[in-house]
Amino acid sequence: MEHQGVLAVISGFSGAGKGTVMKALLEGYDQYALSISATTREPRPGEENGREYFFVSEPEFEEMIEKGALIEYARYVNHYYGTPRAYVESKLAEGKDVLLEIEIQGALKVKEQFPEALLVFLVPPSAAELKERLSGRGTETEEVIEKRLKRAAEEAEGMASYEYILVNDKVEDCTARLHALIQSQHYRTSACRELIRRMEEELKELTKKA
Amino acid sequence: MEHQGVLAVISGFSGAGKGTVMKALLEGYDQYALSISATTREPRPGEENGREYFFVSEPEFEEMIEKGALIEYARYVNHYYGTPRAYVESKLAEGKDVLLEIEIQGALKVKEQFPEALLVFLVPPSAAELKERLSGRGTETEEVIEKRLKRAAEEAEGMASYEYILVNDKVEDCTARLHALIQSQHYRTSACRELIRRMEEELKELTKKA
Repeated sequence: MEHQGVLAVISGFSGAGKGTVMKALLEGYDQYALSISATTREPRPGEENGREYFFVSEPEFEEMIEKGALIEYARYVNHYYGTPRAYVESKLAEGKDVLLEIEIQGALKVKEQFPEALLVFLVPPSAAELKERLSGRGTETEEVIEKRLKRAAEEAEGMASYEYILVNDKVEDCTARLHALIQSQHYRTSACRELIRRMEEELKELTKKA
Repeated sequence: MEHQGVLAVISGFSGAGKGTVMKALLEGYDQYALSISATTREPRPGEENGREYFFVSEPEFEEMIEKGALIEYARYVNHYYGTPRAYVESKLAEGKDVLLEIEIQGALKVKEQFPEALLVFLVPPSAAELKERLSGRGTETEEVIEKRLKRAAEEAEGMASYEYILVNDKVEDCTARLHALIQSQHYRTSACRELIRRMEEELKELTKKA
């Protein structure tokens, strides 16, 4: 089957396990590529340029905006964050399925430019489980946890804008479901235009001879 | 995850292997139910009422039409063929995924009434392979094979109306892909409204307490 890659946009509450599931996809299968954001914020200890983010200066980022080199971007707390277009487009052309972790406003902007993008929202099995996961990290204060839950409550209102909702109950199960879902997008009619064209032509040829 | 069944409409050229793939799904997994058509034609030797078709009289069929008891129906060569609604709806409500083998006009009528129905078109790897399969059956005359190929050439023009195109190269592979595709439809946002509602409510409750 003729394959161009699938652009899979993954959103979900903080604590839904997006990072873990995406890591499992990247480690488990060759066909995925992870889109890496550009940002103007400073690298944190342990972060590497080109791994967690592409760290760029503010003038560099603004030049990327002007040149249309970003699929989407936003400004949070005085810093820019955006998705470089070139990497996504080249990986898709190679036939790689590109994973893009992003929040809802960004996801909707991506969908405008890539109507074939697959929009998936990851949720924990329940809100209680979400709270437990956020607390279980042990790294966050009560205040931060409450903030994240409030943010989740806001984000939940955007869930209906996504195409698919996956429950992250067990990482392996959720990863398998996400993989199956992304792979099935290769069979969408819009991704099979070349196959349809070829089939029509061959059949015409074959029945002409008859 | 809250499940209502998926209605999977399967079309494809004669010789694409629809029957074999659907049989493999029904035998391989518990969650499928096969929709059985009603017809006014006579049973052929070996056919059983309620297995290949529901064999009904013409007045019975016309009563079904009038009562809206058929999702779609058509008349071919002086006989009626149609899809009884009650069976499909009850199986979907039970959470079964219903398989419906039907040609394009019927498929589009089903989609009008069940917008969530999944429309899949099965094709052989190539037109040459299709011809070989039709000839390989050994049961058909040259003339019938040519007729089927011409019909396939016509049907190919309708392929773009389907949502997914699956290539039936190897039965096991095609069956696995179709299974994954149908199962992924359970995670469509429209099938997860109850989950979204519950999540929103739980999050609201949890952040209210804070």
